[in-house]
Amino acid sequence: MRRKEFAMTDDNIEDVNAFLEEMTFGFLGTIGEDGYPNITPLNYVYYNGDIYFHGSKIGEKMSSLAANSKVSFSVAKEYSIIPSYMNDPKYACPATAFFKSVLFRGQAEIVHDLQEKCEVFTVFMEKLQSEGGYDAILPSDQGYAKQVTAAAIVKIRVEEMTSKFKFGQNWSEKKIKKVSDQLIDRDQTLDHETVRLMNLYCPHMKDQAN
Amino acid sequence: MRRKEFAMTDDNIEDVNAFLEEMTFGFLGTIGEDGYPNITPLNYVYYNGDIYFHGSKIGEKMSSLAANSKVSFSVAKEYSIIPSYMNDPKYACPATAFFKSVLFRGQAEIVHDLQEKCEVFTVFMEKLQSEGGYDAILPSDQGYAKQVTAAAIVKIRVEEMTSKFKFGQNWSEKKIKKVSDQLIDRDQTLDHETVRLMNLYCPHMKDQAN
Repeated sequence: MRRKEFAMTDDNIEDVNAFLEEMTFGFLGTIGEDGYPNITPLNYVYYNGDIYFHGSKIGEKMSSLAANSKVSFSVAKEYSIIPSYMNDPKYACPATAFFKSVLFRGQAEIVHDLQEKCEVFTVFMEKLQSEGGYDAILPSDQGYAKQVTAAAIVKIRVEEMTSKFKFGQNWSEKKIKKVSDQLIDRDQTLDHETVRLMNLYCPHMKDQAN
Repeated sequence: MRRKEFAMTDDNIEDVNAFLEEMTFGFLGTIGEDGYPNITPLNYVYYNGDIYFHGSKIGEKMSSLAANSKVSFSVAKEYSIIPSYMNDPKYACPATAFFKSVLFRGQAEIVHDLQEKCEVFTVFMEKLQSEGGYDAILPSDQGYAKQVTAAAIVKIRVEEMTSKFKFGQNWSEKKIKKVSDQLIDRDQTLDHETVRLMNLYCPHMKDQAN
Protein backbone atom coordinates (compact mmCIF):
# COMPACT_ATOMS: atom_id res chain seq x y z
CA MET A 1 0.00 0.00 0.00
CA ARG A 2 1.57 3.28 -1.10
CA ARG A 3 0.38 5.62 1.65
CA LYS A 4 -0.07 9.21 0.56
CA GLU A 5 1.28 10.73 3.76
CA PHE A 6 4.81 9.38 3.14
CA ALA A 7 5.05 10.44 -0.52
CA MET A 8 7.48 13.21 -1.33
CA THR A 9 6.10 15.89 -3.66
CA ASP A 10 7.54 18.73 -5.73
CA ASP A 11 7.94 20.69 -2.47
CA ASN A 12 10.59 18.20 -1.36
CA ILE A 13 12.38 17.68 -4.67
CA GLU A 14 15.62 19.18 -3.33
CA ASP A 15 15.60 16.72 -0.43
CA VAL A 16 15.13 13.84 -2.88
CA ASN A 17 17.94 15.10 -5.12
CA ALA A 18 20.28 15.48 -2.13
CA PHE A 19 19.47 11.91 -1.07
CA LEU A 20 20.24 10.58 -4.58
CA GLU A 21 23.53 12.49 -4.51
CA GLU A 22 24.44 11.15 -1.04
CA MET A 23 23.72 7.49 -1.86
CA THR A 24 26.37 5.65 -3.85
CA PHE A 25 24.49 2.56 -4.95
CA GLY A 26 21.04 1.35 -5.92
CA PHE A 27 19.25 -1.78 -7.15
CA LEU A 28 18.43 -2.38 -10.81
CA GLY A 29 15.35 -4.47 -11.52
CA THR A 30 15.15 -6.26 -14.87
CA ILE A 31 13.14 -9.12 -16.31
CA GLY A 32 15.33 -12.07 -17.23
CA GLU A 33 14.97 -14.11 -20.38
CA ASP A 34 13.64 -16.98 -18.23
CA GLY A 35 10.75 -14.78 -17.03
CA TYR A 36 12.11 -14.18 -13.52
CA PRO A 37 12.68 -10.69 -12.18
CA ASN A 38 16.36 -10.05 -11.54
CA ILE A 39 18.06 -7.54 -9.24
CA THR A 40 21.59 -6.14 -9.50
CA PRO A 41 23.13 -3.76 -6.95
CA LEU A 42 25.09 -1.07 -8.80
CA ASN A 43 26.85 2.23 -8.35
CA TYR A 44 24.88 4.91 -10.21
CA VAL A 45 24.67 8.58 -10.99
CA TYR A 46 21.50 10.61 -11.35
CA TYR A 47 22.36 13.07 -14.09
CA ASN A 48 20.11 15.41 -16.09
CA GLY A 49 17.05 13.56 -14.78
CA ASP A 50 18.21 10.08 -15.83
CA ILE A 51 19.99 7.22 -14.06
CA TYR A 52 23.28 5.90 -15.46
CA PHE A 53 25.29 2.85 -14.53
CA HIS A 54 28.26 1.11 -16.11
CA GLY A 55 29.43 -2.43 -16.53
CA SER A 56 30.85 -5.02 -18.81
CA LYS A 57 29.49 -5.25 -22.35
CA ILE A 58 28.95 -8.98 -22.02
CA GLY A 59 27.05 -10.87 -19.39
CA GLU A 60 23.60 -11.66 -18.06
CA LYS A 61 22.62 -8.08 -17.21
CA MET A 62 23.28 -6.80 -20.74
CA SER A 63 21.54 -9.70 -22.46
CA SER A 64 18.50 -9.22 -20.16
CA LEU A 65 18.38 -5.54 -21.12
CA ALA A 66 18.71 -6.32 -24.81
CA ALA A 67 15.74 -8.73 -24.56
CA ASN A 68 13.60 -6.42 -22.40
CA SER A 69 14.50 -2.78 -21.84
CA LYS A 70 11.84 -2.11 -19.17
CA VAL A 71 13.60 -1.56 -15.86
CA SER A 72 13.16 -0.15 -12.41
CA PHE A 73 15.81 1.26 -10.12
CA SER A 74 15.54 1.61 -6.35
CA VAL A 75 17.64 3.68 -3.95
CA ALA A 76 16.82 3.27 -0.27
CA LYS A 77 18.34 3.86 3.15
CA GLU A 78 17.10 2.63 6.48
CA TYR A 79 17.15 5.05 9.40
CA SER A 80 16.21 4.15 13.00
CA ILE A 81 14.38 0.94 13.77
CA ILE A 82 11.65 1.93 16.25
CA PRO A 83 11.15 -0.80 18.85
CA SER A 84 7.57 -1.61 19.86
CA TYR A 85 8.08 -0.63 23.53
CA MET A 86 8.63 3.00 22.59
CA ASN A 87 4.87 3.01 21.82
CA ASP A 88 3.38 0.01 23.63
CA PRO A 89 4.62 -1.91 26.70
CA LYS A 90 2.84 -5.14 25.72
CA TYR A 91 2.41 -5.81 21.99
CA ALA A 92 5.18 -6.16 19.39
CA CYS A 93 2.94 -4.81 16.62
CA PRO A 94 4.01 -1.12 16.73
CA ALA A 95 7.64 -2.05 15.90
CA THR A 96 8.58 -0.26 12.66
CA ALA A 97 11.50 1.21 10.74
CA PHE A 98 11.92 4.65 9.23
CA PHE A 99 13.50 5.04 5.81
CA LYS A 100 14.00 7.03 2.61
CA SER A 101 13.17 5.28 -0.65
CA VAL A 102 13.16 6.46 -4.27
CA LEU A 103 11.90 4.31 -7.15
CA PHE A 104 12.49 4.95 -10.85
CA ARG A 105 10.84 3.23 -13.79
CA GLY A 106 11.98 3.61 -17.35
CA GLN A 107 13.65 2.20 -20.42
CA ALA A 108 17.29 1.17 -20.45
CA GLU A 109 19.42 2.03 -23.46
CA ILE A 110 23.10 1.57 -24.16
CA VAL A 111 25.05 4.80 -24.63
CA HIS A 112 27.31 4.56 -27.70
CA ASP A 113 28.54 8.12 -28.14
CA LEU A 114 32.12 8.40 -26.85
CA GLN A 115 31.73 12.06 -25.81
CA GLU A 116 28.61 11.28 -23.74
CA LYS A 117 30.30 8.22 -22.21
CA CYS A 118 33.28 10.34 -21.14
CA GLU A 119 30.89 12.92 -19.62
CA VAL A 120 29.02 10.26 -17.64
CA PHE A 121 32.25 8.67 -16.35
CA THR A 122 33.32 12.18 -15.27
CA VAL A 123 30.07 12.60 -13.30
CA PHE A 124 30.70 9.18 -11.71
CA MET A 125 34.20 10.17 -10.65
CA GLU A 126 33.05 13.57 -9.32
CA LYS A 127 30.49 11.74 -7.19
CA LEU A 128 32.50 8.74 -5.97
CA GLN A 129 36.01 10.22 -5.94
CA SER A 130 35.35 13.89 -5.26
CA GLU A 131 38.93 14.44 -4.06
CA GLY A 132 40.19 14.02 -7.67
CA GLY A 133 43.52 12.35 -8.39
CA TYR A 134 43.13 11.39 -12.07
CA ASP A 135 43.47 13.00 -15.50
CA ALA A 136 40.35 14.52 -17.09
CA ILE A 137 38.33 11.87 -18.95
CA LEU A 138 38.37 13.12 -22.55
CA PRO A 139 37.75 11.35 -25.88
CA SER A 140 40.97 12.95 -27.16
CA ASP A 141 43.06 11.04 -24.58
CA GLN A 142 44.00 7.84 -26.41
CA GLY A 143 44.43 5.84 -23.19
CA TYR A 144 40.90 6.73 -22.06
CA ALA A 145 39.29 6.42 -25.51
CA LYS A 146 40.21 2.76 -25.71
CA GLN A 147 39.01 1.87 -22.21
CA VAL A 148 35.83 3.96 -22.38
CA THR A 149 34.95 2.37 -25.74
CA ALA A 150 35.41 -1.09 -24.20
CA ALA A 151 33.13 -0.33 -21.20
CA ALA A 152 29.35 -0.22 -21.34
CA ILE A 153 27.36 2.74 -20.04
CA VAL A 154 23.61 2.24 -19.69
CA LYS A 155 21.17 5.09 -19.38
CA ILE A 156 17.76 4.57 -17.80
CA ARG A 157 15.48 7.02 -19.55
CA VAL A 158 13.30 7.80 -16.55
CA GLU A 159 9.56 7.71 -17.19
CA GLU A 160 8.44 7.87 -13.56
CA MET A 161 10.06 8.69 -10.24
CA THR A 162 8.27 8.23 -6.92
CA SER A 163 9.72 8.74 -3.49
CA LYS A 164 8.64 7.80 -0.04
CA PHE A 165 10.30 9.12 3.09
CA LYS A 166 8.74 7.49 6.16
CA PHE A 167 9.36 9.34 9.41
CA GLY A 168 6.06 9.09 11.32
CA GLN A 169 4.11 11.65 9.26
CA ASN A 170 0.89 9.79 10.19
CA TRP A 171 1.61 10.04 13.94
CA SER A 172 0.15 12.50 16.40
CA GLU A 173 2.35 15.31 17.67
CA LYS A 174 2.34 13.66 21.11
CA LYS A 175 3.53 10.30 19.71
CA ILE A 176 6.31 11.97 17.72
CA LYS A 177 7.49 13.78 20.85
CA LYS A 178 7.41 10.59 22.94
CA VAL A 179 9.40 8.52 20.44
CA SER A 180 11.84 11.38 19.63
CA ASP A 181 12.73 11.69 23.32
CA GLN A 182 13.42 7.96 23.56
CA LEU A 183 15.53 7.94 20.37
CA ILE A 184 17.65 10.81 21.69
CA ASP A 185 18.20 8.83 24.90
CA ARG A 186 19.06 5.67 22.96
CA ASP A 187 21.60 7.56 20.79
CA GLN A 188 22.44 4.85 18.23
CA THR A 189 24.16 5.78 14.95
CA LEU A 190 21.26 7.31 13.02
CA ASP A 191 18.92 8.18 15.91
CA HIS A 192 19.68 11.92 16.05
CA GLU A 193 19.37 12.30 12.28
CA THR A 194 16.08 10.31 12.41
CA VAL A 195 14.68 12.70 15.04
CA ARG A 196 15.70 15.68 12.88
CA LEU A 197 13.84 14.17 9.91
CA MET A 198 10.78 13.23 12.03
CA ASN A 199 10.50 16.89 13.00
CA LEU A 200 11.24 18.15 9.49
CA TYR A 201 8.55 16.05 7.78
CA CYS A 202 5.99 15.97 10.60
CA PRO A 203 2.88 17.80 9.33
CA HIS A 204 2.26 19.32 12.78
CA MET A 205 5.58 21.14 12.59
CA LYS A 206 4.70 22.35 9.10
CA ASP A 207 1.36 23.65 10.38
CA GLN A 208 3.18 25.59 13.06
CA ALA A 209 5.62 27.06 10.51
CA ASN A 210 2.74 28.37 8.35
CA MET B 1 29.45 -10.75 -15.92
CA ARG B 2 29.33 -13.03 -12.91
CA ARG B 3 33.01 -13.58 -12.24
CA LYS B 4 33.83 -16.88 -10.63
CA GLU B 5 36.52 -15.50 -8.34
CA PHE B 6 34.01 -13.43 -6.33
CA ALA B 7 31.43 -16.20 -5.88
CA MET B 8 30.96 -17.57 -2.39
CA THR B 9 30.77 -21.35 -2.16
CA ASP B 10 29.75 -23.91 0.44
CA ASP B 11 33.06 -23.20 2.21
CA ASN B 12 31.82 -19.71 3.01
CA ILE B 13 28.20 -20.52 3.85
CA GLU B 14 28.62 -19.39 7.47
CA ASP B 15 29.92 -15.98 6.31
CA VAL B 16 26.90 -15.64 4.02
CA ASN B 17 24.49 -16.61 6.81
CA ALA B 18 26.13 -14.13 9.21
CA PHE B 19 25.79 -11.39 6.58
CA LEU B 20 22.07 -12.17 6.10
CA GLU B 21 21.61 -12.05 9.87
CA GLU B 22 23.48 -8.72 10.18
CA MET B 23 21.54 -6.96 7.40
CA THR B 24 18.07 -5.71 8.28
CA PHE B 25 16.63 -5.00 4.86
CA GLY B 26 16.71 -6.20 1.27
CA PHE B 27 15.10 -5.51 -2.11
CA LEU B 28 12.21 -7.56 -3.47
CA GLY B 29 11.98 -7.84 -7.26
CA THR B 30 8.59 -8.62 -8.77
CA ILE B 31 7.01 -8.34 -12.21
CA GLY B 32 4.14 -5.86 -12.24
CA GLU B 33 0.85 -6.43 -14.00
CA ASP B 34 1.89 -3.76 -16.53
CA GLY B 35 4.97 -5.83 -17.49
CA TYR B 36 7.52 -3.65 -15.70
CA PRO B 37 9.85 -5.06 -13.08
CA ASN B 38 9.18 -3.55 -9.67
CA ILE B 39 11.41 -3.22 -6.62
CA THR B 40 10.39 -2.84 -2.98
CA PRO B 41 12.85 -2.35 -0.11
CA LEU B 42 11.73 -4.46 2.86
CA ASN B 43 12.79 -5.73 6.24
CA TYR B 44 13.21 -9.50 6.02
CA VAL B 45 14.23 -12.61 7.89
CA TYR B 46 16.09 -15.58 6.47
CA TYR B 47 14.58 -18.50 8.34
CA ASN B 48 14.85 -22.24 7.67
CA GLY B 49 16.36 -21.51 4.26
CA ASP B 50 13.57 -19.22 3.07
CA ILE B 51 13.06 -15.44 3.03
CA TYR B 52 10.04 -13.92 4.79
CA PHE B 53 8.67 -10.39 4.74
CA HIS B 54 5.44 -8.85 6.00
CA GLY B 55 3.15 -6.12 4.84
CA SER B 56 -0.38 -5.03 4.23
CA LYS B 57 -2.81 -7.50 2.67
CA ILE B 58 -3.92 -4.96 0.09
CA GLY B 59 -1.82 -2.92 -2.29
CA GLU B 60 0.30 -3.09 -5.40
CA LYS B 61 2.91 -5.52 -4.03
CA MET B 62 0.33 -8.17 -3.09
CA SER B 63 -1.60 -7.90 -6.35
CA SER B 64 1.70 -8.20 -8.30
CA LEU B 65 2.53 -11.35 -6.35
CA ALA B 66 -0.93 -12.81 -6.89
CA ALA B 67 -0.54 -12.26 -10.66
CA ASN B 68 3.05 -13.52 -10.85
CA SER B 69 4.70 -15.35 -7.96
CA LYS B 70 8.22 -15.41 -9.48
CA VAL B 71 10.42 -13.13 -7.41
CA SER B 72 13.99 -12.28 -6.62
CA PHE B 73 15.38 -10.81 -3.42
CA SER B 74 18.69 -8.98 -3.07
CA VAL B 75 20.67 -8.13 0.06
CA ALA B 76 23.81 -6.06 -0.48
CA LYS B 77 26.20 -3.84 1.43
CA GLU B 78 28.87 -1.58 0.03
CA TYR B 79 32.24 -1.54 1.75
CA SER B 80 35.15 0.75 0.81
CA ILE B 81 35.15 2.65 -2.45
CA ILE B 82 38.67 2.23 -3.83
CA PRO B 83 39.84 5.42 -5.56
CA SER B 84 41.73 5.04 -8.82
CA TYR B 85 44.92 6.72 -7.49
CA MET B 86 45.50 3.88 -5.04
CA ASN B 87 46.38 1.83 -8.14
CA ASP B 88 47.19 4.33 -10.91
CA PRO B 89 48.35 7.97 -10.72
CA LYS B 90 46.90 8.90 -14.13
CA TYR B 91 43.77 7.01 -15.22
CA ALA B 92 40.38 6.92 -13.45
CA CYS B 93 39.64 3.42 -14.75
CA PRO B 94 40.86 1.36 -11.73
CA ALA B 95 38.32 3.09 -9.42
CA THR B 96 36.10 0.38 -7.94
CA ALA B 97 33.98 -0.53 -4.92
CA PHE B 98 34.05 -3.61 -2.72
CA PHE B 99 30.81 -5.19 -1.55
CA LYS B 100 28.88 -8.21 -0.30
CA SER B 101 25.82 -9.23 -2.30
CA VAL B 102 23.41 -12.15 -1.99
CA LEU B 103 20.66 -12.87 -4.52
CA PHE B 104 17.71 -15.20 -4.05
CA ARG B 105 15.26 -16.43 -6.66
CA GLY B 106 12.09 -18.27 -5.86
CA GLN B 107 8.32 -18.35 -5.63
CA ALA B 108 6.39 -16.09 -3.30
CA GLU B 109 3.46 -17.52 -1.36
CA ILE B 110 1.23 -16.03 1.27
CA VAL B 111 1.42 -17.70 4.68
CA HIS B 112 -2.07 -18.35 6.06
CA ASP B 113 -1.40 -20.56 9.09
CA LEU B 114 -1.67 -18.47 12.26
CA GLN B 115 0.89 -20.57 14.15
CA GLU B 116 3.48 -20.16 11.38
CA LYS B 117 2.73 -16.42 11.14
CA CYS B 118 3.31 -16.01 14.88
CA GLU B 119 6.60 -17.94 14.58
CA VAL B 120 7.81 -15.75 11.73
CA PHE B 121 6.89 -12.52 13.55
CA THR B 122 8.82 -13.88 16.54
CA VAL B 123 11.89 -14.42 14.36
CA PHE B 124 11.48 -10.86 13.05
CA MET B 125 11.36 -9.44 16.56
CA GLU B 126 14.32 -11.52 17.72
CA LYS B 127 16.31 -10.10 14.81
CA LEU B 128 15.21 -6.46 14.81
CA GLN B 129 14.45 -5.97 18.52
CA SER B 130 16.82 -8.39 20.18
CA GLU B 131 16.57 -6.55 23.51
CA GLY B 132 12.98 -7.82 23.93
CA GLY B 133 10.34 -5.66 25.57
CA TYR B 134 7.11 -7.30 24.34
CA ASP B 135 4.86 -10.23 25.22
CA ALA B 136 5.49 -13.54 23.41
CA ILE B 137 3.68 -13.66 20.06
CA LEU B 138 1.29 -16.59 20.47
CA PRO B 139 -1.91 -17.55 18.62
CA SER B 140 -3.57 -18.03 22.03
CA ASP B 141 -3.16 -14.30 22.84
CA GLN B 142 -6.38 -12.74 21.54
CA GLY B 143 -4.80 -9.31 21.05
CA TYR B 144 -2.07 -10.79 18.86
CA ALA B 145 -4.34 -13.26 17.04
CA LYS B 146 -6.45 -10.42 15.63
CA GLN B 147 -3.50 -8.31 14.50
CA VAL B 148 -1.47 -11.21 13.13
CA THR B 149 -4.49 -12.43 11.15
CA ALA B 150 -4.91 -8.93 9.68
CA ALA B 151 -1.24 -8.69 8.58
CA ALA B 152 0.23 -10.48 5.56
CA ILE B 153 3.33 -12.63 5.79
CA VAL B 154 4.92 -13.69 2.52
CA LYS B 155 7.37 -16.55 2.22
CA ILE B 156 9.80 -16.72 -0.67
CA ARG B 157 10.34 -20.42 -1.28
CA VAL B 158 13.99 -20.15 -2.29
CA GLU B 159 14.95 -22.05 -5.44
CA GLU B 160 18.39 -20.54 -5.89
CA MET B 161 20.78 -18.49 -3.77
CA THR B 162 23.99 -17.01 -5.17
CA SER B 163 26.40 -14.76 -3.36
CA LYS B 164 29.23 -12.56 -4.46
CA PHE B 165 31.66 -10.96 -2.04
CA LYS B 166 34.06 -8.71 -3.96
CA PHE B 167 37.24 -7.85 -2.06
CA GLY B 168 39.99 -7.96 -4.68
CA GLN B 169 40.21 -11.78 -4.98
CA ASN B 170 41.48 -11.30 -8.58
CA TRP B 171 44.32 -9.00 -7.48
CA SER B 172 47.97 -9.92 -7.01
CA GLU B 173 49.28 -10.18 -3.47
CA LYS B 174 51.37 -7.04 -4.09
CA LYS B 175 48.36 -5.03 -5.20
CA ILE B 176 46.32 -6.15 -2.18
CA LYS B 177 49.14 -5.09 0.13
CA LYS B 178 49.51 -1.68 -1.59
CA VAL B 179 45.78 -0.86 -1.42
CA SER B 180 45.38 -2.28 2.12
CA ASP B 181 48.12 0.04 3.39
CA GLN B 182 46.44 3.07 1.80
CA LEU B 183 43.01 2.12 3.19
CA ILE B 184 44.46 1.81 6.69
CA ASP B 185 45.97 5.27 6.31
CA ARG B 186 42.68 6.71 4.98
CA ASP B 187 40.74 5.23 7.91
CA GLN B 188 37.16 5.97 6.77
CA THR B 189 34.21 4.16 8.39
CA LEU B 190 34.48 0.73 6.74
CA ASP B 191 38.14 0.79 5.64
CA HIS B 192 39.54 -1.37 8.43
CA GLU B 193 36.78 -3.94 8.03
CA THR B 194 37.36 -3.92 4.24
CA VAL B 195 41.08 -4.65 4.75
CA ARG B 196 40.19 -7.51 7.08
CA LEU B 197 37.90 -8.99 4.40
CA MET B 198 40.46 -8.43 1.61
CA ASN B 199 42.91 -10.51 3.59
CA LEU B 200 40.29 -13.10 4.57
CA TYR B 201 39.12 -13.78 1.02
CA CYS B 202 42.40 -13.18 -0.83
CA PRO B 203 43.40 -16.52 -2.44
CA HIS B 204 47.10 -15.82 -1.73
CA MET B 205 46.39 -15.80 2.01
CA LYS B 206 44.44 -19.04 1.63
CA ASP B 207 47.38 -20.62 -0.23
CA GLN B 208 49.66 -19.67 2.65
CA ALA B 209 47.25 -21.12 5.19
CA ASN B 210 47.15 -24.47 3.37
